[in-house]
Amino acid sequence: MRAVDIIMKKRSGEELSREEIEFLIGGYVAGTIPDYQVSAWAMAVYFQGMTPAETGVLTEVMLKSGNVIDLSGISGPFVDKHSTGGVGDKTSLILAPLVASLGIKDPMMSGRALGHTGGTLDKLESIPGYRTNLTVEEFREIIQKDGFAMTGQTKEIAPADRLLYALRDVTATVESIPLITASILSKKVAEGAEGLVFDVKYGSGAFMKDPEDGEKLARSLVNTGAAMGKRIIALLTDMNEPLGNMMGNFLEVEESLDCLEGKGPKDLMEVTLELAARMVVLGGKAKTAQEGRAMCEAALASGKPRELFLNNVRSQGGNPDQLLELRGRYRSPFSMEIRAPRSGYISHIDAYQIGLAGVHLGVGRNRTEDVVSPTAGIQFHKRYGDLVQSGDIVMTVWGKSDQSLKDAKPLIEGALQIQDSKPALRTLIRKEIAS
Amino acid sequence: MRAVDIIMKKRSGEELSREEIEFLIGGYVAGTIPDYQVSAWAMAVYFQGMTPAETGVLTEVMLKSGNVIDLSGISGPFVDKHSTGGVGDKTSLILAPLVASLGIKDPMMSGRALGHTGGTLDKLESIPGYRTNLTVEEFREIIQKDGFAMTGQTKEIAPADRLLYALRDVTATVESIPLITASILSKKVAEGAEGLVFDVKYGSGAFMKDPEDGEKLARSLVNTGAAMGKRIIALLTDMNEPLGNMMGNFLEVEESLDCLEGKGPKDLMEVTLELAARMVVLGGKAKTAQEGRAMCEAALASGKPRELFLNNVRSQGGNPDQLLELRGRYRSPFSMEIRAPRSGYISHIDAYQIGLAGVHLGVGRNRTEDVVSPTAGIQFHKRYGDLVQSGDIVMTVWGKSDQSLKDAKPLIEGALQIQDSKPALRTLIRKEIAS
Repeated sequence: MRAVDIIMKKRSGEELSREEIEFLIGGYVAGTIPDYQVSAWAMAVYFQGMTPAETGVLTEVMLKSGNVIDLSGISGPFVDKHSTGGVGDKTSLILAPLVASLGIKDPMMSGRALGHTGGTLDKLESIPGYRTNLTVEEFREIIQKDGFAMTGQTKEIAPADRLLYALRDVTATVESIPLITASILSKKVAEGAEGLVFDVKYGSGAFMKDPEDGEKLARSLVNTGAAMGKRIIALLTDMNEPLGNMMGNFLEVEESLDCLEGKGPKDLMEVTLELAARMVVLGGKAKTAQEGRAMCEAALASGKPRELFLNNVRSQGGNPDQLLELRGRYRSPFSMEIRAPRSGYISHIDAYQIGLAGVHLGVGRNRTEDVVSPTAGIQFHKRYGDLVQSGDIVMTVWGKSDQSLKDAKPLIEGALQIQDSKPALRTLIRKEIAS
Repeated sequence: MRAVDIIMKKRSGEELSREEIEFLIGGYVAGTIPDYQVSAWAMAVYFQGMTPAETGVLTEVMLKSGNVIDLSGISGPFVDKHSTGGVGDKTSLILAPLVASLGIKDPMMSGRALGHTGGTLDKLESIPGYRTNLTVEEFREIIQKDGFAMTGQTKEIAPADRLLYALRDVTATVESIPLITASILSKKVAEGAEGLVFDVKYGSGAFMKDPEDGEKLARSLVNTGAAMGKRIIALLTDMNEPLGNMMGNFLEVEESLDCLEGKGPKDLMEVTLELAARMVVLGGKAKTAQEGRAMCEAALASGKPRELFLNNVRSQGGNPDQLLELRGRYRSPFSMEIRAPRSGYISHIDAYQIGLAGVHLGVGRNRTEDVVSPTAGIQFHKRYGDLVQSGDIVMTVWGKSDQSLKDAKPLIEGALQIQDSKPALRTLIRKEIAS
C-alpha cells in the first residue's frame, strides 16, 4: 500500500477502505507517512468529501490512536455537550452543574480560545487558583464527588487529531465537514460520555457562517456518532450576535453565576436551557425536551446547581468565597465606553468583529502560545433590538493595555449597527437534529 | 503574507497575484515555506486550476529560480522539441541531427525513463561511452560544432521545478495542466531555445489518456509560452500503440539510425517528419510545414543528418564505429518470442502495457534510482493492422534476466489484440495547435 495511491483515490472521489485510512493516519502518527502527503490528502478530502462510512472509520482510527477515559466504577449516566465555538458562549460552565444537580454526570474536556472564538478553559482559569490540567485520576475523583469535572484534553486523548488538526490549521484544510466531524467526535467519544449534545453554531461569529453548512455538520456529527453507538442530539443555534451580555474570561464566569442564580440574560438562558433539556433526555431522566427543560428550570430555582458549581471551584483549586468577592470588581484598569453614535434600534452587534476585538483586548489569542488576560472583555449594556439614544453607553470595554483598547476600538465600533425601525425578533434555535 | 492564506485563496478558486506566487514558490525554494503547505496548495490547484496569467507567472518564477543557458556567441536559430512522454518515442534522436543539417541549432535537454515511459538520456547512454552529463561549457561547444547537443538538465536549471515535481510525484498532484505547463516550460525556456515544438501525446501510453485533456495541455503550453515571448507549435499525436518497431534503449538508437538512413517504419517517420517540419518553420528556414517537410525529406536523402548524428556520438564520448558494429547484435542473452495466439488482424498493441512490461525487462524504471539495461526491449515484427497466422512470431523480447521475461510476459500477451476484420487506419496526428 502506498500513500500516493490513497491520495489519488480520494482525489478521484472514490471511497477509501478501512485499511487505507488506517494505513494513512496510523502511518502519520507513527511518523512513517510524511506531513506533505497527509496535507495533500486533506485537501483532496476538502474537495471530494467522505462517505458516512469513511468518516466513521476516520473517527475510530483517530479515537484509537489514544486512550479512552475509563469511567468504570463511577455510576452514570454520562452526558456531555460540545459547542462548535462562538463569542460569549459560556453555556458549558452552567450546563455541567445544572445537569449534575439532576443526577447526570458530565466528564467535560474543553479547549482554549483561538482566533475570534472563546475557550472554556481560559474562562475557568480566570478564577484564581482554578486548575484545568487534572490528571485522569483527579478527573475521575471530582466527577464522582461533584457530578462533573472540567479539564483540558490530556495528551493521551486522540493524538492523531492533535497532529492532524495542527497540520490542517496551516494548510487551509480546516473547513471540511468529515474532517471536523472526526476531529470533534474522536475527542468527545474518548471522554467516556454515552450521550452527547452538540451545539452547532452558524453565523458571523461561528465557524460555519452559513446555516446550511451548519446543518450538514450537525447531521454528520449525529450520524457518525450514532454509528459509533453514541446517543446524539444536535441543536443548530444562531451565532450572529454574541451570546449573553458579557464577553471575556472572568466576565463570563460572572455571567454563568448569574444564570445559575436564575438571573441570566434571556438569550443565554434560552440556549442553555434548551441544551440542558437535551442532556437530561439523553441521560434518561426525562422523556421529552419539554419535560427536561422544566426539570432544569426547577433545579435552577432550587439553588443546587450554583452550590455544585462552587463545590467544583473548590475541588479544582479555586476559592469560592474569593470568587464571590471578586464578582463585579475583577476588571482590568484599562477601560473605555462605547456610546451610540446615533439614536435608533440596535440591529446588529457583529459577533465576529467582537471576537476579533477580543483578541486585541486579551480575551482570546491568535496563536496557541499567546497568554490571555482574565480581566479583559466587553459588557453589553444594550443588545440587539434595544432602543438607544445618541450618546447612550452601549458597551464597557476592558483591555489588557491602553494600546489594546485603541486596537480594538474600530472593530467594536464597526460591529455596532443602529437603524430607525425595530428589527425582527431573532430565532435563537433554528433546528434540532437527532439520529 | 501567510502561506495558509494563499492556499485558502486558491482553494476558493481565486486568482493568485504575482507577489503571492513568488512568495510561495520562492519561500519553498528558500526553505522558509514547508513542503506540507506547498503540497496542499498543489492539490488546491489540481481542483481549481490556474488562469493563463497565473500559469505564466508560475512558469517565470520557476524559470528564475535557476539559470538560463547562455547561448550568446553561437549563431542561431535555436529550436527544440519536447514530448510529453510515450512508449517507443525516439524522435528526439532523429530530429536534432535532422534540423541541424538544415542550419537549425537544437540545445536539447532531456529526461530519463520513469514509469511506463522511456527516456532520451537512457537511450543515448546505451551507446557505450556516450555522456549525457555535459557541463554548460561542453554543451555550448558541441552545439557550436555539431549543431546540436543532447544532455540532462543541470542542477542550475529551474531548481524550483525539481523540488516541486518531486513533491507532486508523491502527493498525487502531477496531473494538473497549469502545473505541468509551468514544469515543462520553465525547463525548456531555460535551455535558451527561441522556438519550441511540443509533441503532446494522448492515449493509453501517454500521460494524458484522453485527447481532450491533451489538447488542453497543448493550448496551455502554446499560450503560456507565447506570453513569454517564445514561438510555439504543438502537435497532438496518438500514443495508443508504441511508436515504431522498437522499444528499448539500444534498440531505439538502432531504429533512429534506420530513420536517419531513410528506412525507418512508416508511423515513426511520419511523426518525426511532421515535428521536424514545424521546427524548420519556427527556425525561419521554411514558410509552411509542407515546405519544411520537403526540406527534411531531402536532407535525409542526402545522408547529412546521419553524419551529424555520428559526429555527435563522438563529441559526447561514444565511438561511431563501435556503434555501427554493435548494430543488430547488442542484445541481452535473455530473450523470448511472442507468437500470435490466433489468426487475424492485429487491432491493438497496448502502449501502456508494453511500457509497463518494459519496466520489468529493464528498459525503464519505477524509481529514479533504479538502473536500466541498454540491451533489453521489444522488437515488433508485426504491428497494428497487420495480418497474422496463428503461431506467427509477433514480437521478440529481451530482458535483463530470465525472471524479468516471466514478469513481463503476461503484460505483453495482454497488450496484444487480434480480430477477424482489418481495423481502420490510425490517425497519427490529430491536431496542430499554434499561438
